[in-house]
Amino acid sequence: MIYPKLLEELIEYFKKLPGIGEKSAERLALSILDSSEEEINLFAKAMQKAKKELHPCVICGNLTTNDICEICSNDGRNKELICVVEDIKSIYAFEKMGKFNGVYHVLNGLISPINGITPYDINIDTLIKRCQDDDNIEVIVALKPTIEGETTTQYINKILEKSKTNVSRLSYGLPVGAELDYLDSLTLERAFEDRKNI
Amino acid sequence: MIYPKLLEELIEYFKKLPGIGEKSAERLALSILDSSEEEINLFAKAMQKAKKELHPCVICGNLTTNDICEICSNDGRNKELICVVEDIKSIYAFEKMGKFNGVYHVLNGLISPINGITPYDINIDTLIKRCQDDDNIEVIVALKPTIEGETTTQYINKILEKSKTNVSRLSYGLPVGAELDYLDSLTLERAFEDRKNI
Repeated sequence: MIYPKLLEELIEYFKKLPGIGEKSAERLALSILDSSEEEINLFAKAMQKAKKELHPCVICGNLTTNDICEICSNDGRNKELICVVEDIKSIYAFEKMGKFNGVYHVLNGLISPINGITPYDINIDTLIKRCQDDDNIEVIVALKPTIEGETTTQYINKILEKSKTNVSRLSYGLPVGAELDYLDSLTLERAFEDRKNI
Repeated sequence: MIYPKLLEELIEYFKKLPGIGEKSAERLALSILDSSEEEINLFAKAMQKAKKELHPCVICGNLTTNDICEICSNDGRNKELICVVEDIKSIYAFEKMGKFNGVYHVLNGLISPINGITPYDINIDTLIKRCQDDDNIEVIVALKPTIEGETTTQYINKILEKSKTNVSRLSYGLPVGAELDYLDSLTLERAFEDRKNI
């Protein structure tokens, strides 16, 4: 064994985190030993407290310490405009953008027949219910442009067709600042399909 | 505020770790929330325990839970061959190599006049003492080839000149597998200087 046992164990815990390999785990574990005992206790407590007290919002699935999250309980937000996202991370991306004043619905996954994930495995039922409760709901599906994302988008559109809900998806096209000759053909094809009158 | 407060706090702790930026900290904090409460408790405990119980070996400065580390207390290792390293990470690099059967001496830093680090700020005194205690000591200085590393190497060589200690440094030269035309001029120059008869 190369490392002292306690260090080895700590490295193993860091290696379990996403995107952390052998070398990074070693660096992180040693940096923990360089911190003060107090700092380490605070970090440890922050992990345990966040896990214990944060849970999904009963309406949208966003993380909250209450029953209903800050976004769903904010009177300034338009409750009739629902942005459907794959996971919580997407909420933070849109909130950083700062231009969306509606509310969210977290699916917690995407339909993927190849991985055995059906519409019943993700939070689509609750989305349908939210749309049934109000005739003026507008849904914006904001999923990533992959097979799974598009399948899920199509499914949601189909299932909400019967209701009065207006369903749209984010546009595909050129990312801002991109060099056209570096973009893949599929992105260019979509940019043609989704073209807009000026 | 975009994140729930407890998540924001956890992200801040991850951002303090070396090499972890905003995006990675967010990913790591959310992955902690995906772990079970038990796993998080074990991880937290591993950090606290490692910090509490690991301290420097009184002889070489390597991490250990005892007074003397596993390497210094191993009878199979040559105590008269001391490899001088900058930090504990270097010990693990050489141990992974698996070809060195001597012991180590951790300086915990390098001489750097520009940053105000003098020979008295790093563990050179204890190295001199180890060499004075035994007339047959051989010292291999294994520091990185930077200004600081070379200054420290020269200093150690000068201060041990008076004793009977034999002092060498690692060779500079071509890293195995390198393409010659991609190497910098300084490395090539050093490879010429350190050339060996075949």
